[in-house]
Amino acid sequence: MLATFMYGAGDVRVETVPDPTLKNSTDAIVRTVRSCVCGSDLHPYHSMENSGEGSPMGHELIAVVEEVGSDVTTVKPGDFVIVPFAFSDNTCVFCREGFQTSCVHGGWYGSAETGGLQADLARIPLADGSLVKVPDLDPATADEGMLASLLTLSDVYLTGYHAAHMGHVEPGKTVTVIGDGAVGLSAVLAAQQLGAERIILMGRHTARTDLGVAFGATDVVAERGEDGIARVMDLTDGEGAHIVLEAVGHMPAYEQAHGIVRPGGIISRVGVPQYEEAGIGFGSLFGKNARLAGGPAPVRAYIEAAIPQVMSGAINPGRVFDRTISLTDVPAGYRAMDSRAALKVMVTV
Amino acid sequence: MLATFMYGAGDVRVETVPDPTLKNSTDAIVRTVRSCVCGSDLHPYHSMENSGEGSPMGHELIAVVEEVGSDVTTVKPGDFVIVPFAFSDNTCVFCREGFQTSCVHGGWYGSAETGGLQADLARIPLADGSLVKVPDLDPATADEGMLASLLTLSDVYLTGYHAAHMGHVEPGKTVTVIGDGAVGLSAVLAAQQLGAERIILMGRHTARTDLGVAFGATDVVAERGEDGIARVMDLTDGEGAHIVLEAVGHMPAYEQAHGIVRPGGIISRVGVPQYEEAGIGFGSLFGKNARLAGGPAPVRAYIEAAIPQVMSGAINPGRVFDRTISLTDVPAGYRAMDSRAALKVMVTV
Repeated sequence: MLATFMYGAGDVRVETVPDPTLKNSTDAIVRTVRSCVCGSDLHPYHSMENSGEGSPMGHELIAVVEEVGSDVTTVKPGDFVIVPFAFSDNTCVFCREGFQTSCVHGGWYGSAETGGLQADLARIPLADGSLVKVPDLDPATADEGMLASLLTLSDVYLTGYHAAHMGHVEPGKTVTVIGDGAVGLSAVLAAQQLGAERIILMGRHTARTDLGVAFGATDVVAERGEDGIARVMDLTDGEGAHIVLEAVGHMPAYEQAHGIVRPGGIISRVGVPQYEEAGIGFGSLFGKNARLAGGPAPVRAYIEAAIPQVMSGAINPGRVFDRTISLTDVPAGYRAMDSRAALKVMVTV
Repeated sequence: MLATFMYGAGDVRVETVPDPTLKNSTDAIVRTVRSCVCGSDLHPYHSMENSGEGSPMGHELIAVVEEVGSDVTTVKPGDFVIVPFAFSDNTCVFCREGFQTSCVHGGWYGSAETGGLQADLARIPLADGSLVKVPDLDPATADEGMLASLLTLSDVYLTGYHAAHMGHVEPGKTVTVIGDGAVGLSAVLAAQQLGAERIILMGRHTARTDLGVAFGATDVVAERGEDGIARVMDLTDGEGAHIVLEAVGHMPAYEQAHGIVRPGGIISRVGVPQYEEAGIGFGSLFGKNARLAGGPAPVRAYIEAAIPQVMSGAINPGRVFDRTISLTDVPAGYRAMDSRAALKVMVTV
């Protein structure tokens, strides 16, 4: 089969490798319908040291089950499934508490052990916990927009949703979203779904912020840093936002976040932090009782509820995809996202 | 009148100064019934640079109203009142949201402008917002234990309560409290009141942890650092605590907190952080979706509900006071708390 590997910063290759096989009785083998490139894939694309061994890439997937291990009971060959970006048993204590990304037996794709999902086929560990069947839909005849929206339930839309959920977005609240990438725009849509009264989107790429407005943003702020903080404070009568959804991961975005969150408000981060230490003392969070939440989204917790929203057309999160390429063209897909020529790239087989 | 000033680390003096007078029509002048020394007073006691001008000290007080400005309507001379450690109008947007320590018109005691509360008399700004009347109790004849417990509603007990409240303590939860000072012990009592199933108290001073057990701690962990983390993980079957109440404010306590909080759990800080930057990236908070909350407690938000609990004897938070001194002896009170000879020192007039 074909699969994607990264050998260093800017060095992505699609290579022929052996097909995956069942290793454990709880595994499934699935065949890709659509995968895609994630904003978080760009972090190693910028910084990975050159290596003779490629790292398998990709963690977002909708697929059809090919084969299941003897202990798999919830899916069978032929089922059309969504693959959450982290695998989990969905039964351990942390899964039951809604944090499947911390599953005691779970893990991440993209290791030598599990492989990546920008590939023709994939081995899915803990298939009963890790796969969610999409009922009553044949991917071979499904509308392309429907496939795109279902694919976002593997990561990007439900990562935005996780930000809004952990931020306790609810009717009457003023929300600011930092970042006009696909996760930020997804966070706008999720905040709108949860009833936010006002949604201020901080971003400077008009094509993207236009989609943000279509998703429910009520205001767009193009300024960054101190100017951006001043603009949001101005828009909120000097009070700041109840909830800040931080969908970038770099320090300036975090600094903006604590600059605009109001006393008692919540900063909810889903941009993977590219820093370990940051301000949380009296001058940043503590003095105004600002709260901090977020982390890798346990999308598994939210998929079942989101599927009917997508199937009914109530939400169209797949609009974040603005380019579709074949698996052999994945390196060009990384380049397009890195240069911002594409917002998010969908990958066919 | 007599009032307390700090001139540098270890240098506390009680001096005769002019009586305070009404400055604004919203002020009240109150006469001290009981004040006390706070653990947070020990931070400048350790680190304050010598200064020719003393800083007025003290922010915890129960008192009797002597005089009110012409715009004060909710209290009158003779009323017995609790003075929250921050003053606030209790009507601004942030007050209405329950964060009176961020009141748009509020502020702190201990400045040249407002003076400190370890004194015979005090000027209370925004008296309608800042004073809460204790009904049906004459402080001249009240039981000493009752006065002690009412005094804790000015800061220490309700600071512990704020930690538990912001940590979303509720029945079924495992809570760990870091710190066996008066705030930590108050946090234990508050967690018990909110129905925590298990309360692990981290502290090594037996006299204090014994009071913690009386307040509801189910386990005591004397170890610190990595050993302390290992012990808590062991006590929780490797899962960690749902909620960590951090009542110290030094970096090792924060590091312990993120070491023992479970995935999706909450660290709620009320120890004033003696650091600005700390770990919040993938390796500390983000990776496991741990949340961070806390700040200066808006005790004003909680006083009305706590007064009947104290008056009925349902809670006895005043047990944290283990020494009573007169105002002239306040320097000895600081020494006793600094050397840990006393847990918390109450001050009479």
